[in-house]
Amino acid sequence: MAADKTDLKARAQRLRELHHGEMLILPNVWDAASATVVVEAGFPVVATASAAVSAMLGYPDGEGAPWQEMFAAAGRIARVVPVPVTVDAEAGYGLRPRELVDRLLDIGAVGCNLEDTDHRAGGLVEAGAHAQRLADIRSAADDAGVPIVINARVDTFLPGGGIAEPDRLAEAIRRGRLYREAGADCVYPIGVRRRADIAALVAELPGPVNGNTGDELDLAALRELGVARVSYGPRFYRTAMADLRTAVERLSR
Amino acid sequence: MAADKTDLKARAQRLRELHHGEMLILPNVWDAASATVVVEAGFPVVATASAAVSAMLGYPDGEGAPWQEMFAAAGRIARVVPVPVTVDAEAGYGLRPRELVDRLLDIGAVGCNLEDTDHRAGGLVEAGAHAQRLADIRSAADDAGVPIVINARVDTFLPGGGIAEPDRLAEAIRRGRLYREAGADCVYPIGVRRRADIAALVAELPGPVNGNTGDELDLAALRELGVARVSYGPRFYRTAMADLRTAVERLSR
Repeated sequence: MAADKTDLKARAQRLRELHHGEMLILPNVWDAASATVVVEAGFPVVATASAAVSAMLGYPDGEGAPWQEMFAAAGRIARVVPVPVTVDAEAGYGLRPRELVDRLLDIGAVGCNLEDTDHRAGGLVEAGAHAQRLADIRSAADDAGVPIVINARVDTFLPGGGIAEPDRLAEAIRRGRLYREAGADCVYPIGVRRRADIAALVAELPGPVNGNTGDELDLAALRELGVARVSYGPRFYRTAMADLRTAVERLSR
Repeated sequence: MAADKTDLKARAQRLRELHHGEMLILPNVWDAASATVVVEAGFPVVATASAAVSAMLGYPDGEGAPWQEMFAAAGRIARVVPVPVTVDAEAGYGLRPRELVDRLLDIGAVGCNLEDTDHRAGGLVEAGAHAQRLADIRSAADDAGVPIVINARVDTFLPGGGIAEPDRLAEAIRRGRLYREAGADCVYPIGVRRRADIAALVAELPGPVNGNTGDELDLAALRELGVARVSYGPRFYRTAMADLRTAVERLSR
């Protein structure tokens, strides 16, 4: 899409502002129709979920799909919605900072999630190296003239992160601070299940925090704790697939 | 995909045979994950629904999407399933017969739906001209060396077909016979709602008939009437989108 740069700047700014008002709720989508449903329901932003998009395309999550297909899928979404689109760009597919920024802007996206998991080596990327990468992406976005919104995912709470349970919170705070200093707009410690942990993260991290709902944490709890942004990842897609399974199994009985 | 021609021939033959045994049930899919669900539930064939695929891609049905995107989407499905794939190819996008056949085989598909609606002029294509096109496609498939399975849709029961209600059945029979003579493997009078109509179609048409479920017609009724193949079009996709709407509206309350 030959997106207009003035329009992209306005969308990026709007997306950024939405991290500083009412809690931003993002029911993540995977295709153009699901994005349209979310917009028609009144949500001011469309966010993709890489696990859903890659499953829809027929690949495993965790950079299992070719990045060209992931961006093309996100582009089909951005083409049809009039609101800012933020793309779950996994760990950035090894793209150079300016390349990543240009690919996002080419498809009309103005924000991205970037995670600190190392999909090749396993475990987490060294925190300082990841912060430097975020700073380089921020700088590339400045050069490109569109202040894209960077949501820096912190994967210390994921089993694959390789961080022992007692150290997860402290390491998430350490990483979140570094990423924020590097120019991230929001910090997303994915998979936090405990109310006390998300409360500590909101208290200790400068700037907006992205949370998830869970057993101890409904939307009201997250709002009360000061979470700025809530996302659902592939949850709605997985529900749709589970419901489809039930429906088609009924046909074959 | 560089599909193996021997494998494609075997898949085409298998798909054809499935029109002459137990009633073939096709819960139509739209992406790789929904196709995987259908295969895991034990269905021996995967069929796409153009209305669902085009909505997923962000375009209106009725050849509103670029054919390249429609085939690419079907190719992502065929890539991940080990069963024959049949593609709802709408009216064939104006592609020449051999081009259409080659595009299907390139993505690993071995069957297609082809409808007699004229998406440019509106109404139906003249029956003789459509029969000739089907014969040309059959001939192109012979030349290509893979006997693809052609499901010839007859659109006289659709409001857009422009056929007055009392004439729909007779015109469907007339067209179905022509299409079958032209080399179609199955005739699909879409949108038949009355038991008496589908019974007449099965009785009057030589060869397999594709039906739909509806108020008067559940799977048991269609089976009893001798319908060979049942498809659902975008029904499961629309259910998924309606359920998503309900779920996300709940979040914003």
